Amino acid sequence: MVTNKNELTEIFPKGEKGSSENFTGNAYNVGLIETDSLLTTAVGNVYFEPGARSNWHSHPAGQILIITDGIGYHQIEGQPIEIIKKGSVVKCPPNVRHWHGASADVGLQQLYIVPNTEKGIVNWQEAVTEEVYNSIK
Amino acid sequence: MVTNKNELTEIFPKGEKGSSENFTGNAYNVGLIETDSLLTTAVGNVYFEPGARSNWHSHPAGQILIITDGIGYHQIEGQPIEIIKKGSVVKCPPNVRHWHGASADVGLQQLYIVPNTEKGIVNWQEAVTEEVYNSIK
Repeated sequence: MVTNKNELTEIFPKGEKGSSENFTGNAYNVGLIETDSLLTTAVGNVYFEPGARSNWHSHPAGQILIITDGIGYHQIEGQPIEIIKKGSVVKCPPNVRHWHGASADVGLQQLYIVPNTEKGIVNWQEAVTEEVYNSIK
Repeated sequence: MVTNKNELTEIFPKGEKGSSENFTGNAYNVGLIETDSLLTTAVGNVYFEPGARSNWHSHPAGQILIITDGIGYHQIEGQPIEIIKKGSVVKCPPNVRHWHGASADVGLQQLYIVPNTEKGIVNWQEAVTEEVYNSIK
């Protein structure tokens, strides 16, 4: 069997392709639990193909990302781009702008946790430019 | 290479062996984020060896389990034991007694999410008897 470096382990269904209004490239999102008023938490998985990333956005109650496979980038506005990979766990505080996605060459499998959903889930903003995305190199 | 059915994919460090006061058999826990007052969420991973399981316990604000590999059991008190495996996601409501662990023959890799940690994390109770554990068969 030939193993491709871009062949990531899939734990969850691939889900639906994210809108080009909110993502650059191909990103697929699947919600993993029905968000409710008891647990007030949204959980899901996003698979980013190589080069794909979210727009800039913020979460009224913040976000936790858990990387289960692949290699990608996460940037909190005003901070350097950090490399995230299998086993990485990162937090973004409430109402802070960030973006995340795959590296140029390897995709990314990431779980997201949005706590305290009674405050809201996400506020989408502008796309991440090629200049910003490529500034990691 | 010989592949053993009990060889599960490890995404996170194995962590520390759970106390025999709270677990039957060998279970290893690693916290994945520093719980804080901003995100009010605890996240970690537990690896249960085959046959290992938690005691009965409850969470003041409930819990979400995400299974990343292996096969195990989850039981909410008064309900049948449900089989959980790679890709399963289950919720337990606040202050409801439950237990979870590996199947007898195959281990379990599971992420846990405890929301709204300002209400508390976990209340440990008695061990799951062999009779209850084996009642799945």
